[in-house]
Amino acid sequence: MLGAADRGYDRDMNDAAFWRELGQQLLVDSIRASDAAGSGHPTSSMSAADLIAVLLAKHLHYDFGRPEDPRNDHLIFSKGHASPLYYSFLKAAGAITDEDLLTFRKLGSRFEGHPTPVLPWVDVATGSLGQGLPIGVGVALAGKRLDHLPYRVWVLCGDSEMAEGSIWEAFEHAAYNGLDNLTAIIDVNRLGQTRQTMHGWDLDSYAERARAFGWHAIEIDGHDVEEIDGAFAEASHMEGRPTVVVARTKKGKGASEVEDLEGKHGKPLSDPEKAIEELGGVRSLRVEVARPERDGAPRKIDPGHGVQWPRWGADDKVATRRAYGDALAALGAERADVVALDGEVSNSTFSELFAKAHPERYFEMFIAEQQMVAAAVGLQVRGYRPFASTFAAFFTRAYDFVRMAAISRARLCLTGSHAGVAIGEDGPSQMALEDLAMFRAVHSSVVLYPSDPNQAAALVRLMADYPGIAYMRTSRGATPTIYGPDDRFEIGGSCVLRSSEEDQVTLIGAGVTLHEALKAADDLSAQGVAARVIDLYSVKPVDEETVRQAAADTGAIVTVEDHWPEGGLGDAVLAALAEVDGVRVRKLAVTEMPGSGKPEELIHAYGIDADAIVAAAQDLVRAPAGA
Amino acid sequence: MLGAADRGYDRDMNDAAFWRELGQQLLVDSIRASDAAGSGHPTSSMSAADLIAVLLAKHLHYDFGRPEDPRNDHLIFSKGHASPLYYSFLKAAGAITDEDLLTFRKLGSRFEGHPTPVLPWVDVATGSLGQGLPIGVGVALAGKRLDHLPYRVWVLCGDSEMAEGSIWEAFEHAAYNGLDNLTAIIDVNRLGQTRQTMHGWDLDSYAERARAFGWHAIEIDGHDVEEIDGAFAEASHMEGRPTVVVARTKKGKGASEVEDLEGKHGKPLSDPEKAIEELGGVRSLRVEVARPERDGAPRKIDPGHGVQWPRWGADDKVATRRAYGDALAALGAERADVVALDGEVSNSTFSELFAKAHPERYFEMFIAEQQMVAAAVGLQVRGYRPFASTFAAFFTRAYDFVRMAAISRARLCLTGSHAGVAIGEDGPSQMALEDLAMFRAVHSSVVLYPSDPNQAAALVRLMADYPGIAYMRTSRGATPTIYGPDDRFEIGGSCVLRSSEEDQVTLIGAGVTLHEALKAADDLSAQGVAARVIDLYSVKPVDEETVRQAAADTGAIVTVEDHWPEGGLGDAVLAALAEVDGVRVRKLAVTEMPGSGKPEELIHAYGIDADAIVAAAQDLVRAPAGA
Repeated sequence: MLGAADRGYDRDMNDAAFWRELGQQLLVDSIRASDAAGSGHPTSSMSAADLIAVLLAKHLHYDFGRPEDPRNDHLIFSKGHASPLYYSFLKAAGAITDEDLLTFRKLGSRFEGHPTPVLPWVDVATGSLGQGLPIGVGVALAGKRLDHLPYRVWVLCGDSEMAEGSIWEAFEHAAYNGLDNLTAIIDVNRLGQTRQTMHGWDLDSYAERARAFGWHAIEIDGHDVEEIDGAFAEASHMEGRPTVVVARTKKGKGASEVEDLEGKHGKPLSDPEKAIEELGGVRSLRVEVARPERDGAPRKIDPGHGVQWPRWGADDKVATRRAYGDALAALGAERADVVALDGEVSNSTFSELFAKAHPERYFEMFIAEQQMVAAAVGLQVRGYRPFASTFAAFFTRAYDFVRMAAISRARLCLTGSHAGVAIGEDGPSQMALEDLAMFRAVHSSVVLYPSDPNQAAALVRLMADYPGIAYMRTSRGATPTIYGPDDRFEIGGSCVLRSSEEDQVTLIGAGVTLHEALKAADDLSAQGVAARVIDLYSVKPVDEETVRQAAADTGAIVTVEDHWPEGGLGDAVLAALAEVDGVRVRKLAVTEMPGSGKPEELIHAYGIDADAIVAAAQDLVRAPAGA
Repeated sequence: MLGAADRGYDRDMNDAAFWRELGQQLLVDSIRASDAAGSGHPTSSMSAADLIAVLLAKHLHYDFGRPEDPRNDHLIFSKGHASPLYYSFLKAAGAITDEDLLTFRKLGSRFEGHPTPVLPWVDVATGSLGQGLPIGVGVALAGKRLDHLPYRVWVLCGDSEMAEGSIWEAFEHAAYNGLDNLTAIIDVNRLGQTRQTMHGWDLDSYAERARAFGWHAIEIDGHDVEEIDGAFAEASHMEGRPTVVVARTKKGKGASEVEDLEGKHGKPLSDPEKAIEELGGVRSLRVEVARPERDGAPRKIDPGHGVQWPRWGADDKVATRRAYGDALAALGAERADVVALDGEVSNSTFSELFAKAHPERYFEMFIAEQQMVAAAVGLQVRGYRPFASTFAAFFTRAYDFVRMAAISRARLCLTGSHAGVAIGEDGPSQMALEDLAMFRAVHSSVVLYPSDPNQAAALVRLMADYPGIAYMRTSRGATPTIYGPDDRFEIGGSCVLRSSEEDQVTLIGAGVTLHEALKAADDLSAQGVAARVIDLYSVKPVDEETVRQAAADTGAIVTVEDHWPEGGLGDAVLAALAEVDGVRVRKLAVTEMPGSGKPEELIHAYGIDADAIVAAAQDLVRAPAGA
């Protein structure tokens, strides 16, 4: 590796005077970027400038020319609104130019209001507070348990975001997993958006909480570069425990117009020229950032455990959740990159089958769904293919993390079991009735809902290759096997299971309701009504061609789903038919708050069983279009 | 009040021997209820039986004949799956019969798999873990800051749910607010669903965390009734701080088939007869529960602060978020029951206007959206009418709490600001693009989206009277005033702003896009195309009649929304037209991941501005139905 002098750098990266100058540059550039944009969060950037200066100059190991290098450290700005500081940091590292910096927040610029991975050095999008640290836990887990590489994960947190429970899920899991490769830096600038935080500059309050959760905690003056250096060195050498550096800082540091003042959140300085003068003017220091120290590559995982791909015969009755587990275990034997996480319900979701086959690639996240999804995001940062599972209803707990994962351009496979009233006795708290709506309204998502075990298994394989967020809804109860183990399915596909030239009505279901639709078609047939049946296992994207053909052929469609009426399978069908004329659609869904009961009692009581489908179809057929 | 002897009770509620017998009864009844149901969580109930026995016999003050009595204590089973214990407790209190108990989990029974407020003694639904304690914080806040009544809030937590971050949000807020009327009881039975918890029987780990968060913590043997009694007495007398009782217990206590064994979660005992025999057989003890000790009524709040209802003139340009704040402040001056909460963005959502006018009724929840919604649920338990606000995007953080609030039959008003790409520079992490879908898919919800300040204000008043979950989406930027201050709106209504007998196409928008639709109608008119314009301010329920009339009149509809295509305004329109023939709908929505830019640049770039509407309308008109 070339030394600083060889590359034209004549400054000592270990020199405190240089760190101070670099800190001033980061302050000035944060002010300049926000001023150029006419908006942004300079004061929240300024409090952390000295922390980031010392990190950049001495402790971070990162090859900015090769952001994909697996040996690189990871730096996550959990306080994503400090984006002016982050982009100023990139400039100081030589990764971007000053001109780049000044495109901050402009249309088409990669330097967005909050950092996103449209920049190659950004692992994940932040900006919804309390997410960077739990994602950092995921990256650190990858380093520790999968890669076996010595990279460090540095996460800059704001003090305001310590109020988010997800932060404490991260503290818990980092300590439980002994993540000494993780350092959280809390920028305690005391001021939130509208007032002082709950703890102000009481550094002890943060440090004591962290220690109670099993972390090593160091309290420092966040503007004393030597204290910062000492703390980062201590964090880097800590063994067996993660470290939190609790740094007392001043919001708007160094600029009299804003320093430590309320009412200065989230806006440019009104007199940036004066502030820049106070800070000693514009600088263009360039840091020769330390490259990853050691050679090495991620440890190779041997996937081969001889788990066979599951196959079910026509007489098997198997729950799709069980098929998910079998297929995932088999996929893990084919692909070394597949990992699994669960929220302490692995014997319900059947991710336990993966855990048994590949224990070194299974991550138990206990009952912390936010941390589970965040860890999955962190694992995919390092190239792994995470499958995370819990009850479908409990993914609602992590919706903000899923939303942000889409902005992170993350590749995630999420599987929710125990959907709908068909779970039976456990009652509405355990019944996902909004998951299809929730996951459809995620950018880049696909939503899959198999109705038989062979199909569920095939969809698991497709999910693994999908370059976005793939959600699968599985069912609690056993369903008949209606597909062969070699049948092919595709994202955006559907299966026409009953069809004739005389079809008067089309029945569209998926999962539990597909089997009801098949029964209804038999009943209708006995009553002289020919019904087409479509298995809409890909709820997003929808197989528009097949749905439109059915509309053209039959003019009447009944959709049926174990879900609220809004945003699910029925709405997906309607969207496919938005510009199609000459078809009427009757949506069957759960419209009342359910209680407990047996599965078959509940799907009857809430009007999504074969009886309800027959009645709806008869009604549509009796009153044809235009009548 | 009658004494125990007068009412035919001859036992001493203060007698430890009685507490033990009562505990045995609760064990036996938990087993019997689960056995009768054929499912349920007896072992998770049994660990807490002694805790609940002592609470019921001595420390709880509750008039079971008058569950609406404001002086009653509150008991929340945060571990809702211990419902067999809860229902056994109700039986022991004389509130229900043994026959009632044995209807557990059957169709039509009020004794659902997890408790819900279909029972008058249940404040809120639980069953999604980690919610009972933050809701309890809300109830305790009502007691402390609004009612000024000495009732206590007791929350039974499982040890597994301590992994949920929301629990730590609750710990933070309870301590910050000095809620010494709140007692959390952690049933540390060490065993989760599939394995031991992260901390097993390490009571210190919980107690130290709690103390670091500012609580008083007491560690006890949860099967020693005298220790339990001592701890509850200590909690009841603690001043200035909430208390947590950390109780070491055994899952499946007292039944050799299940006690402290793995693999016994969530299923009835296989030999209930033997277990009941081990436990000394069936009992029918009845507790004379202590009534609320003191007389008293909730403190009367004087709402009158002379805040006038806001009125805007035709020339005013005002953001709907600002109008929300003005109207809420005025509503607070009319109605003493209205309270407000915010997630530390009150100067963005403008709930600060309420806070300034009615500081005693404003609750700052800092950046803890789960706790914010949970506190709102708790406040409405006590009859208050909470309005909770944050950025619309950040309600995704609390979706599970909103979902459960619907099961709780809660009355909540939630307002999300900064919706869509129209916020501009802050970028996608701050842009709600899924909130309409998320809130539409909530049972009992209404979804409102005003486009002018007078309308926003009027909708605030309607929200306050809505008996369910009312969500309003407000906009960041100022919009023209198009309605008068006395115009009337209704939930389920719409406004037809442009209409003629020659209309060839209908444009439907709301909020920001309504103004684009109006511009588009002008442009289309100049091009010789007559366009109807509908303000669909009630996205759920939709004004089906007006939409269907427009479909019949024009045969072509363009919907436009600052939202992903799935589950929002466009899908609501399509659902209204599901069974309507002869209309084609073109949905305009945000289909690519946005970046930063100016609001007008972004609505143009993502195809939801007047230009896009004109193009879509022209396209539909040029290619009429059937062409």
